[in-house]
Amino acid sequence: MAENFADRLLTAIRRKGTPACIGIDPEYGRLPADIADQKEMNDAADTDSALDAILEFSRRVIHVVAPLVPAIKLNIAFFERYYWDGVEGYYDLIQEAAERDLIVIGDVKRADIGHSSAAYAEAHLAEPEFSNMEDLVAPDAVTVNSYFGLDALRPFLDVARSEQKGLFALVQTSNESWNDLQGLKLESGLTVAEKVATLVNGWAGDAGLIGNSGFSSLGAVISPRDAESTAKLRAMLPHSFLLVPGYGAQGRGAESVAPCFKSDGTGAIITASRSVIYAYEDMRYVERFASEWERCVEQSCRDFIADIARVWPR
Amino acid sequence: MAENFADRLLTAIRRKGTPACIGIDPEYGRLPADIADQKEMNDAADTDSALDAILEFSRRVIHVVAPLVPAIKLNIAFFERYYWDGVEGYYDLIQEAAERDLIVIGDVKRADIGHSSAAYAEAHLAEPEFSNMEDLVAPDAVTVNSYFGLDALRPFLDVARSEQKGLFALVQTSNESWNDLQGLKLESGLTVAEKVATLVNGWAGDAGLIGNSGFSSLGAVISPRDAESTAKLRAMLPHSFLLVPGYGAQGRGAESVAPCFKSDGTGAIITASRSVIYAYEDMRYVERFASEWERCVEQSCRDFIADIARVWPR
Repeated sequence: MAENFADRLLTAIRRKGTPACIGIDPEYGRLPADIADQKEMNDAADTDSALDAILEFSRRVIHVVAPLVPAIKLNIAFFERYYWDGVEGYYDLIQEAAERDLIVIGDVKRADIGHSSAAYAEAHLAEPEFSNMEDLVAPDAVTVNSYFGLDALRPFLDVARSEQKGLFALVQTSNESWNDLQGLKLESGLTVAEKVATLVNGWAGDAGLIGNSGFSSLGAVISPRDAESTAKLRAMLPHSFLLVPGYGAQGRGAESVAPCFKSDGTGAIITASRSVIYAYEDMRYVERFASEWERCVEQSCRDFIADIARVWPR
Repeated sequence: MAENFADRLLTAIRRKGTPACIGIDPEYGRLPADIADQKEMNDAADTDSALDAILEFSRRVIHVVAPLVPAIKLNIAFFERYYWDGVEGYYDLIQEAAERDLIVIGDVKRADIGHSSAAYAEAHLAEPEFSNMEDLVAPDAVTVNSYFGLDALRPFLDVARSEQKGLFALVQTSNESWNDLQGLKLESGLTVAEKVATLVNGWAGDAGLIGNSGFSSLGAVISPRDAESTAKLRAMLPHSFLLVPGYGAQGRGAESVAPCFKSDGTGAIITASRSVIYAYEDMRYVERFASEWERCVEQSCRDFIADIARVWPR
């Protein structure tokens, strides 16, 4: 029997010595020159060649970061962009990462009612039950949308419980319009995001989800705002790992993510995506490594880890 | 230049004489006997044969309902269940329905921040830009999740504006746990769902989205509760078509959906899914048509239309 997801995540963070996670959001127009050269020999307006280039890039990023970080996050939107072949590529990359002992978070942000959510949980979190899909590897965890309430998450929670998988429910997102809804105050005095945090905490406490570490397989996506509100959300989710987006390209630095950790340094995994995978567009790295894009990515990943280490309580 | 989505929807409803929409949520375990017989000759635990059966069933349902209703809704969850081949099947069915002049709503419930939402909008709503995908047909409209606020919807709205497509933003859903969040009261006195309705209305009023009919390409998913709260939501969304799930199998009858219409009968499209597509499990139809499952589906679709007609103001 596999270990509880939260326990596995905690072990992986300890082994690598960092709570850093790399988000892989590949866009064709931003691919590095040596992959771009290759793609120009093909038809750039063809899904096959565009997808080949995107998958090659993603695989090489995975190879670069695998020795350095405990986890990667794959955003399925950038693969669905290439229709069914893109979806196949997404699953190929999950396998690639799993073979390198990375914890893989599928950033799918799914949820629906009843049977539909059950179908999504089978598609995106459960290991395949089909005889012709034995080689397919599902992610270790996925992100889910909280707008429907508990019953939409229940099929995912059932898979998390029975297959030792993980979930991160959206609580507070990193986009500018978060405040259209998430920041509004309820009659109870809580903001919508805070209310969702209390709901998630209620669901996370289920005995079948809590690991030996005391953490639950149900975590929360929380993009930090000011230190006070972040500390409040952290305190509302004592059993949950926080998946923290928005470092780097989304404008947040190490200081802003610091309140996402518990005082012992556990309980958060910090994601950087564009600032790392597109480091070869950043003059600070280009000046040192010229067109060796993988060295730019590696150095940016190391800098991200070092920056987080400054604020990571241990 | 194609016509505005809301105008096209209104015309299709008038032409067919009903605001009924059939939701196609196919599950392998519920397929009818003549498709099940065929599947048992294959390996039932194989995605290929399971998916073949599901697609054959879905195509035949589309053929049955196409002369009767203006629109169908395809829930992608039931196709993603079969991984990339399922996604290809989903797009095949969109084409099948489009060839029969049905308006196709892709029930994908996507949303994410910035670039990720843009990738979803390209994947799920825009007509494909790739040279090898010229034959692929995207849906006329998709459902989107409102939890992120406006900027997550903006890439979808851009496609709606430039390609005359439609959107339905989740406001109030039909699951039991809707009240975990959507029914809670804000300090302003509005419920969360009502607040989302006012936000959607603000976005729907954009001049580029409003058609000759006065309706916007941005509609809302609203599952009715009591008549009073439904009438309130209806009044909050003067420019929006409501996509109304939950008729039939989800326990709601024609009376409960009546307040979703404007007084002239416009402004709502009512979806029935399981109660129609699985009508061959219902003794009322089996007694009349025995194992002729398509006749059961057809009669159930006609009964659904007649039931809605009782409360549909014209």
